[in-house]
Amino acid sequence: MTVTFHAAPRFPSGFRCASRNAGLKPKAKDLALFVSDVDAQAAALFTRNHFPGAPIILGRETIKGGVLRAIVANSKCSNVATGDEGVANARRMAAAAAREVGTATDRILVSSTGVIGVPLPIDLIERGLAGMAGDLQADPMVGAEGIMTTDTHPKALSAAVAGSNATLTWIAKGSGMIEPNMATMLCYIFTDAAIPAATLDRLLRTAVQDSLGMLSVDSDTSTSDTCVLMANGLAGPVDEGAFLDALTAGCVRMTEILARDGEGATHLLRVHVEGALNPDEARVIAKTIVNSPLIKTMVFGADPNVGRILMAIGKCFNCTINAGSTDAWINGFQVVGGGRRLEFEDAVVRTALGNEVVDLRVSLGVGEARATAYGCDLTQGYIDENAAYYSS
Amino acid sequence: MTVTFHAAPRFPSGFRCASRNAGLKPKAKDLALFVSDVDAQAAALFTRNHFPGAPIILGRETIKGGVLRAIVANSKCSNVATGDEGVANARRMAAAAAREVGTATDRILVSSTGVIGVPLPIDLIERGLAGMAGDLQADPMVGAEGIMTTDTHPKALSAAVAGSNATLTWIAKGSGMIEPNMATMLCYIFTDAAIPAATLDRLLRTAVQDSLGMLSVDSDTSTSDTCVLMANGLAGPVDEGAFLDALTAGCVRMTEILARDGEGATHLLRVHVEGALNPDEARVIAKTIVNSPLIKTMVFGADPNVGRILMAIGKCFNCTINAGSTDAWINGFQVVGGGRRLEFEDAVVRTALGNEVVDLRVSLGVGEARATAYGCDLTQGYIDENAAYYSS
Repeated sequence: MTVTFHAAPRFPSGFRCASRNAGLKPKAKDLALFVSDVDAQAAALFTRNHFPGAPIILGRETIKGGVLRAIVANSKCSNVATGDEGVANARRMAAAAAREVGTATDRILVSSTGVIGVPLPIDLIERGLAGMAGDLQADPMVGAEGIMTTDTHPKALSAAVAGSNATLTWIAKGSGMIEPNMATMLCYIFTDAAIPAATLDRLLRTAVQDSLGMLSVDSDTSTSDTCVLMANGLAGPVDEGAFLDALTAGCVRMTEILARDGEGATHLLRVHVEGALNPDEARVIAKTIVNSPLIKTMVFGADPNVGRILMAIGKCFNCTINAGSTDAWINGFQVVGGGRRLEFEDAVVRTALGNEVVDLRVSLGVGEARATAYGCDLTQGYIDENAAYYSS
Repeated sequence: MTVTFHAAPRFPSGFRCASRNAGLKPKAKDLALFVSDVDAQAAALFTRNHFPGAPIILGRETIKGGVLRAIVANSKCSNVATGDEGVANARRMAAAAAREVGTATDRILVSSTGVIGVPLPIDLIERGLAGMAGDLQADPMVGAEGIMTTDTHPKALSAAVAGSNATLTWIAKGSGMIEPNMATMLCYIFTDAAIPAATLDRLLRTAVQDSLGMLSVDSDTSTSDTCVLMANGLAGPVDEGAFLDALTAGCVRMTEILARDGEGATHLLRVHVEGALNPDEARVIAKTIVNSPLIKTMVFGADPNVGRILMAIGKCFNCTINAGSTDAWINGFQVVGGGRRLEFEDAVVRTALGNEVVDLRVSLGVGEARATAYGCDLTQGYIDENAAYYSS
């Protein structure tokens, strides 16, 4: 089913947001608040990193209730590796947002993103939150601006749920330290559909598995990854299948937007693996190709060094690979057949690789399973941003 | 035991080498021959990649005999993903070398390194080999020059085996597509000690596991990795323990040399993990840290963004990590204690990271196992080399 996204993203009924500079960054916005007018059923997925940030530790506790009124998020400092004070500061941040919104502290989900290991400037955040409820407005982009770090643009999407009055809205951030395994750095999803928390949890896991779960900018897994879905019910019940279709389509599209805005990226790279022995192997192989530095630099340079595709498949030591049945295409042009590089005009493949979106398709011929991974090229821009991220 | 390497590398008794330009590259040397005056007992390890090059397919067959007289290697073209003609060409290359040396084809080990998927110019190689036996000489560097690809310098080492007259000599190449898992791209080891092939095989596996097996320049695994050990016996028997000590020390030192000459690298990065639950987890964690793009760019920029160390440890999802007992040091300076970033003067860590050799030590506090991984920083130079490798 085709899901159409609105030309300008909008919120579902009853959701608003605000953002501000609270003094964590010199000038740019660094604090965002997303509020539902009424309590919303909610589900969330968090990073699998062994060193989760304080907001993740608190968030796992909060989401058990299955009900949220608001999300508060700051950028610049991730409140990770900050010990018990870090968790206490995350609680203070939730309490300050709860006071501002007029709800209980356990209905606030907190996110922090930015440098690891630096104490959260909680006083600045508390001062910044004061009066923010008065700024709440209907444009999702305003909230998206408040959570940016190295993102080059704010990221929001919205779409209707077929056969209903309900809307789904995605707001996300993230450019580096991205191989989520469960969720992306920060992705907030809002809907006015009426769906209980347990169902939201199941649908969110399903939608994320083949979208944000298959995203990798740089193979590094953030300590702050959070994906939240809030459903305030104001548009009434929806067909579950139609809702899941829209939810999945938006998660896939947001995954592509995040990948394309990967640090320093100039291409969106999609790796489609088919004919794998089983879904797990399809995912491992797609992720391995999308993460290969030599594939990523080939895409950056539009250099038709297509043997690297075989190298990347071949390093999946524990997967079932049959050299003789391995084929590959770059943007529809076949470059590998039966495990051999085919003869082709370099210029043709160079042109295919020059497209802003590069679809690399691999057919393994050993089974029926398929998977798609999302990533980007590796450029000097990534090095420049990350050789001095802490200091800048 | 301390192993001392010769200031200028030399061969063991009875080994010589030659190298030439055979016309595969415009001017640089692209063909090398390493010969023992007498048959040598031999063992070899090859890449685990599912798409091994034709020389690997042939080499696995050749090494079963346990006896070699010579190694012939070309650079520029790897003879990978070239099908049955590729294997036939590798056999022709072995036959040509055998004629030149005056031995049987099955006593020649063949290596090819360079671009994947391009037919081997076997006519050029056969013509190039003609008369090469007349050029054989005693300087290992001459052979090392013939196998370079993106290496910035030829790589050779030699050392005495304690308590004997035997010598060990290592010749290697490799700068990118390096995460060997078993061996590095090409590493040839020669000795005049008298050791049977079965013992060589066991000793080689032992020495490689904690040296070349722990090397990663870019997490990509070559389709051509080969590590060969030839022992011609001319210096008589040796103490096995002393031989293994020297063999291991040289493999570790060559691993460091290869890592430091990683494509675009400006630092050697050594990651020492201790207090892990078991040796496998110690290796996984050390490799994960050494491969993290955000750790590698931190080292390049000498940027004290030390929280990334916890991020990288934390993404080892299947390893046993205890946040509260995790400590880390950069060149002896403690930056993480009990899973928290410690307070420190940025300038001190910046200076530590500015050293050409960066030792990153992690203590996990969950067991007694340890491992060291070897890598390098990630710089614009890596991107530049790999965005146009095929075309250049």
